[in-house]
Amino acid sequence: MMSDETDHRVKAVVWRNDKLSLLDQRLLPEKELYIEIDSVDQAADAISSMVVRGAPAIGVTAAYAIVLAARSRFMDDPEQWKVLLQEDLDMLAVARPTAVNLRWAISRMHSCIKHITGNPEDVLLTEAKAIHQEDIDANVKMGLLGVQYLEPQSQVLTHCNAGALATGGYGTALGVVRAGYRAGKIQNVYADETRPWLQGARLTAWELAKEGIPVTLIPDSAAAYLMKQKHFDWVIVGADRIAVNGDVANKIGTYSLAVNARHHGVRFMVVAPTSTVDMEMRSGAEIPIETRDESEVLTMAGRNLSPAGVTALNPVFDVTPAELVDVIVTEKGVVERPQTGSLTKLFEP
Amino acid sequence: MMSDETDHRVKAVVWRNDKLSLLDQRLLPEKELYIEIDSVDQAADAISSMVVRGAPAIGVTAAYAIVLAARSRFMDDPEQWKVLLQEDLDMLAVARPTAVNLRWAISRMHSCIKHITGNPEDVLLTEAKAIHQEDIDANVKMGLLGVQYLEPQSQVLTHCNAGALATGGYGTALGVVRAGYRAGKIQNVYADETRPWLQGARLTAWELAKEGIPVTLIPDSAAAYLMKQKHFDWVIVGADRIAVNGDVANKIGTYSLAVNARHHGVRFMVVAPTSTVDMEMRSGAEIPIETRDESEVLTMAGRNLSPAGVTALNPVFDVTPAELVDVIVTEKGVVERPQTGSLTKLFEP
Repeated sequence: MMSDETDHRVKAVVWRNDKLSLLDQRLLPEKELYIEIDSVDQAADAISSMVVRGAPAIGVTAAYAIVLAARSRFMDDPEQWKVLLQEDLDMLAVARPTAVNLRWAISRMHSCIKHITGNPEDVLLTEAKAIHQEDIDANVKMGLLGVQYLEPQSQVLTHCNAGALATGGYGTALGVVRAGYRAGKIQNVYADETRPWLQGARLTAWELAKEGIPVTLIPDSAAAYLMKQKHFDWVIVGADRIAVNGDVANKIGTYSLAVNARHHGVRFMVVAPTSTVDMEMRSGAEIPIETRDESEVLTMAGRNLSPAGVTALNPVFDVTPAELVDVIVTEKGVVERPQTGSLTKLFEP
Repeated sequence: MMSDETDHRVKAVVWRNDKLSLLDQRLLPEKELYIEIDSVDQAADAISSMVVRGAPAIGVTAAYAIVLAARSRFMDDPEQWKVLLQEDLDMLAVARPTAVNLRWAISRMHSCIKHITGNPEDVLLTEAKAIHQEDIDANVKMGLLGVQYLEPQSQVLTHCNAGALATGGYGTALGVVRAGYRAGKIQNVYADETRPWLQGARLTAWELAKEGIPVTLIPDSAAAYLMKQKHFDWVIVGADRIAVNGDVANKIGTYSLAVNARHHGVRFMVVAPTSTVDMEMRSGAEIPIETRDESEVLTMAGRNLSPAGVTALNPVFDVTPAELVDVIVTEKGVVERPQTGSLTKLFEP
């Protein structure tokens, strides 16, 4: 039922012809091109190089990548494939450091592998498809849960891309935006352009425009000024990892928005499936923050923005402390004013 | 004496061969090209289209533009030139709305015009050159005044370009950076890239690199995260207009930095000549904030960043309230914790 909601949407991750297909998000919005992936090495490389990005989409990609890896290892050695596969899982786990959904998906596939006898492909493909479908269903559920917090005619600002492109489909933050727009509760959607990778300008604008949801882009640095002008009621973002105490790692710039949102009385909503919660991280201080190559800041489309010899810092995530978050929406329920213990309850049976 | 300090530096505004030459800042850092301006219309257009930008540089440009205008009007009609010239002054005054230095320079040239008999060119050129030189001297003075606030090994973040390119020469915020670097008080200089026009990446990086001052670029949205990591002791910026109560209009993103600086205990310094203070504005709420075309956000170097049909907001300045400013440095002295009355004292004899 729930997936009807998402069938017509753009898909970042697709399993077809016994292979993994990934929409190359580095080329959007200029080109809509799927890359065929038939090895775990290619999949890890696609994750590292951001062909696919967004914590839940990375998790789904990893699940399918393990199907490819197991197929190859079983073909090479039907006796020892599980031992050999461990190397692939370890390699995949470090493709990107911040999004915990990657390790979550690997761990779930690993639990499944333990019980397999014989050719693993069918069992693992079924599990990968389940992970994918559950992610979509979780997104739709979160959309409905999150939208309850919006008053009619809400003005919403989002950052980066936490949409269909960042997930199995539908989206986390953009799931709430989609549901809110359809329910007539959202009047205007604003998107930070999200330098340096321009996920807002290139991806969020693209997927919302495709669906006829009007979106207005703003430079990241204009958010505070527009908050002061009362342009926004809510900031709604996704997450790459959430610590037990409710601290949220998300795209660089999220923390600045959260500080400014609190300063201006704008509410702050994080939307993420429970696969994004890392029960091993007591606080955000423990979450590894990825730094990517400075060329992402210094160049655009191969062209230098600044003169030779200039260096750049490119931390691509930051941590928003729980005290600046008003609501965390998961598929298992909503946590208001998160603190240590409140997320743990979501995992109780 | 003071101008020795600035002789070897890049000049945004030059009077040569009886004409005005402007370094086309739209083309930096790729091309270093001067445009020859020999009419006031061309000068107004160069200001509007940002061939030249930065409040003090706009003021100096306007002063020279009036020399060109007066020459032309006097040639056309040696009796009525002052009456005819008024039209040029009015046109020039609205070339850009936020920087008050434009109207300040026009007003000062106007006072000079009143007393002229005969051919006005020499008198007005002398006045324009005085405005230019006084701006450079003010910058050097502010550099020395501002640097006294820096502790040894300071880490400094600047926004936009408030350097030689934005002034008669030397710079306001970058004047303090230059003086601080030379005095061994600044360990590291960081520059926000400053979307959408990338003044930080294109201009600040360029002029500092030219002088051998190492600079590290950061995405605008990374400033808050890096403040939390204790990367900066001071944020140092210029200003486009300062109200009587100490509210500061400056490049979009300045306000977000100020909110975050206060949140993280980072000090916030504004460096601007007294020609930037507008005694007619009781508070920042009265300062007109320019909105420029959305294409500056939606495209880069003629290339679309986002799909067709997406709109953007492009406010290019914001207002930082006085209570978030620790120090305003002018050539007439420094005001700590500005409030109504404290700036007025600078203008007392």
